[in-house]
Amino acid sequence: MFTVEKIKKISKVDYKTQKDELMLKVGELQRKAKELKVPILIIFEGMQGTGKGLIINELLLSLDPRGYNLYNNPDDRKNLTERPMFWKFWEHLPKTGEISIFYRSWYFSTLWREKDYNRSCIDINNIEEFLQDSGMVVLKFFLYTSKNEQSKRLKRFEKNPLSSKKSRRIALRKNKHYDEIMDKWEKIIQISDNGIVDWHIVCAEDLNFAKLEVLKLISQELENRLEVKTSQIPIVLPTIQSFDLSTVDLKQNIKPKEYKETLKKYQKRLHDLQFEVFKKKIPVIIAYEGWDAAGKGGNIKRLVEKLDPRGYSVIPISSPNDFEKSRPYLWRFWHYFPKFGYFAIFDRTWYGRVLVERVENFATELEWKRSYKEIREMEEQWVNSNAVVIKFWLQIDKDEQLRRFEERKNNQDKQWKITDEDWRNREKWDEYELAVSEMIARTNNIRAPWTIVPSNNKYYSRLFVLKTVIEAIEDHLKK
Amino acid sequence: MFTVEKIKKISKVDYKTQKDELMLKVGELQRKAKELKVPILIIFEGMQGTGKGLIINELLLSLDPRGYNLYNNPDDRKNLTERPMFWKFWEHLPKTGEISIFYRSWYFSTLWREKDYNRSCIDINNIEEFLQDSGMVVLKFFLYTSKNEQSKRLKRFEKNPLSSKKSRRIALRKNKHYDEIMDKWEKIIQISDNGIVDWHIVCAEDLNFAKLEVLKLISQELENRLEVKTSQIPIVLPTIQSFDLSTVDLKQNIKPKEYKETLKKYQKRLHDLQFEVFKKKIPVIIAYEGWDAAGKGGNIKRLVEKLDPRGYSVIPISSPNDFEKSRPYLWRFWHYFPKFGYFAIFDRTWYGRVLVERVENFATELEWKRSYKEIREMEEQWVNSNAVVIKFWLQIDKDEQLRRFEERKNNQDKQWKITDEDWRNREKWDEYELAVSEMIARTNNIRAPWTIVPSNNKYYSRLFVLKTVIEAIEDHLKK
Repeated sequence: MFTVEKIKKISKVDYKTQKDELMLKVGELQRKAKELKVPILIIFEGMQGTGKGLIINELLLSLDPRGYNLYNNPDDRKNLTERPMFWKFWEHLPKTGEISIFYRSWYFSTLWREKDYNRSCIDINNIEEFLQDSGMVVLKFFLYTSKNEQSKRLKRFEKNPLSSKKSRRIALRKNKHYDEIMDKWEKIIQISDNGIVDWHIVCAEDLNFAKLEVLKLISQELENRLEVKTSQIPIVLPTIQSFDLSTVDLKQNIKPKEYKETLKKYQKRLHDLQFEVFKKKIPVIIAYEGWDAAGKGGNIKRLVEKLDPRGYSVIPISSPNDFEKSRPYLWRFWHYFPKFGYFAIFDRTWYGRVLVERVENFATELEWKRSYKEIREMEEQWVNSNAVVIKFWLQIDKDEQLRRFEERKNNQDKQWKITDEDWRNREKWDEYELAVSEMIARTNNIRAPWTIVPSNNKYYSRLFVLKTVIEAIEDHLKK
Repeated sequence: MFTVEKIKKISKVDYKTQKDELMLKVGELQRKAKELKVPILIIFEGMQGTGKGLIINELLLSLDPRGYNLYNNPDDRKNLTERPMFWKFWEHLPKTGEISIFYRSWYFSTLWREKDYNRSCIDINNIEEFLQDSGMVVLKFFLYTSKNEQSKRLKRFEKNPLSSKKSRRIALRKNKHYDEIMDKWEKIIQISDNGIVDWHIVCAEDLNFAKLEVLKLISQELENRLEVKTSQIPIVLPTIQSFDLSTVDLKQNIKPKEYKETLKKYQKRLHDLQFEVFKKKIPVIIAYEGWDAAGKGGNIKRLVEKLDPRGYSVIPISSPNDFEKSRPYLWRFWHYFPKFGYFAIFDRTWYGRVLVERVENFATELEWKRSYKEIREMEEQWVNSNAVVIKFWLQIDKDEQLRRFEERKNNQDKQWKITDEDWRNREKWDEYELAVSEMIARTNNIRAPWTIVPSNNKYYSRLFVLKTVIEAIEDHLKK
């Protein structure tokens, strides 16, 4: 158990001098972080009554408000939430050059879980590693006091209505369970003191001491880490058999009449499943990747044609905008995570990292190589939140693509669909094929598997996709 | 009452041909809107069972998903909401070149109000006028069927769980009240058929007819209006006595000891009021404007110093980012509207439109002249939502500004606070003074009044602001 140290009382004058100095320092480091475009995440956790609010306020006063955000994580254990627990934290991550402060974080949201406690701890470690690798400075503080001191403070604390009603009601009860709660904290801190982001444990028995300590640690950490670039150690990926795209049989054919009938049947079935999914609050994520002109657009149209439009959204992914660029590259995909019970259909996806960004050198080798793991982890986190994750690669051959490009060029209604960029991409077919083959091999797994869709025949491709979606949802419903 | 027309049944083949043609047309117009960067808002309202969902789905299928958003306005009459009713609609407005579709809108949210029904209708008209003036194309559709047809459809409708539970439960009861509800709709449509955005009333007795009709109207409207620029008729503002800044007495002084004592007393009082405000769920909006170096930063610091950081946020306003630029200029201020019970403190504000944007010609004369009215209306809408709106102008004289600029230049810790831009702005002092004087005169009103804060003496300025905030909140609590 964290012990309460005997703390030398600081004189008022000394406290004031030291504090003013540290506040100036922290303000200066904030400006430096802004210049260097480094995002900073500061997490505060702690037992009830440790003065988190007062300490954070002190920190805020030293910062330029033009560059921080405070996120107050509510006690949502009993609340029905609309999205996975991690979603709200992603929404509040700092932009480049800015500071986000979490008043309670994913630790607080995990502490009392039972069923998925272990999973959640793994997810936390993975996410923190990802954030740090993406160039974010992550700092974690845990504040504690002795049981006696807590008891005194909780009595005063009762009248603060900004703390949720429930937490006030149970505040004093908490003091009784001090040892048990402290134990839980020690356990989760141990699990997450992971060598990636280490904890700062601060004794808040004396509030002034704690304030100085936090400011001191923040200024030390920032001083050390603002200039240090993220690790440049090359990544060695395990050797693996790439997926051979040439083995895909593209000769399937389907007659218009059969297509029409089956399409109708499948669409009806999916329409019914949409209701099931809604009732059971299952989020469904459908990811479309494929060659240019492989027919993604038409395919998505048939998929959603008979669905209730209030229950799905189609998210087209192109190069990130300014807003998205100022966040870690996976941010926007978390942002579009559907509400429980809804469909999110991605027209191109997070796999852009290992496809276009790899081939066109928009991402460094380190970045795209690292992303196989990061993507697997993100999908894992989604699946842990009860999501169905379905990933399609729409496969056509090079001749078929040429035929479609020419058709688009010659058909007035379709000309807008074809751009110079499509022709440029086509010249890099082999490079893309290599990237696709490796992507499928490295990110295929049983919980979020790839489905390769033979798409030379559009009818076949559409039915194939519908069938796969139907089966994946049916399987999930049976669980 | 809207009458149900005898509708000639359309043959399946004719329907298909016409639909395909219209869908192509709408898709083409979407691309054109994107090119021209015109945002489009399409509102669908209608009686229960009119097939809004099916019609919207048809529309969506004709659109490139890379450019639309569907917002499904929930039935929130009985729900406690965290922000004003209009807030969520502002969040979902289209960006430039994009289409937002509201499945039910502010009309649905207003229809059943009692107390503030009239106010809400006025707000709607004002907001629609603002959006249209800002260059947005706004289209409104109302769908209806006969009572008989509705009854048939509601029976089928019962099993669709994507409609909220409550709405399903009361669906059939609604048919009984058909006349009464229709009456309500007719009334609100009459009030809001305002010559700014006119309604399209579509009979949905025959669903195919309604689908074609909606597509036809959308393509006609877009065809007519995409090229038409917003009105360029010069605005003639009423003659008004400008506020004379030179009448502000800047000689006030306050001794350090008195300052310290009073500051402590005021901060304590505001701290207590924060709890009151939170309990009563009153949103508090504090707007800071003032000369460069008038002391806004230090002033805000003292204002929030003793507040619970979970209950306020400071929002620094500088030039809009890409994301904000793609929305109407008032969008970001709505975006930052505080939750009920919280403080939002703006460091510079929406008044930028008539200050820096006017002086530096970032806004056209038409734009900034129009904005006095737009701003008054927005503040009125906020006050209607029970907000306290407090606006400060921090006044210093030209000599005092120079003294402070020099001090910043010579003090290492403060150098970052002074930029070339500050010196450039200073050269335009007279132009700014004119703009400020006119702004205060044209936007001062009893529900959202301006407070001019003598700020040559920083102590005096800080206490003055604190006192004003305290009194404004106390007054509001007495209501």
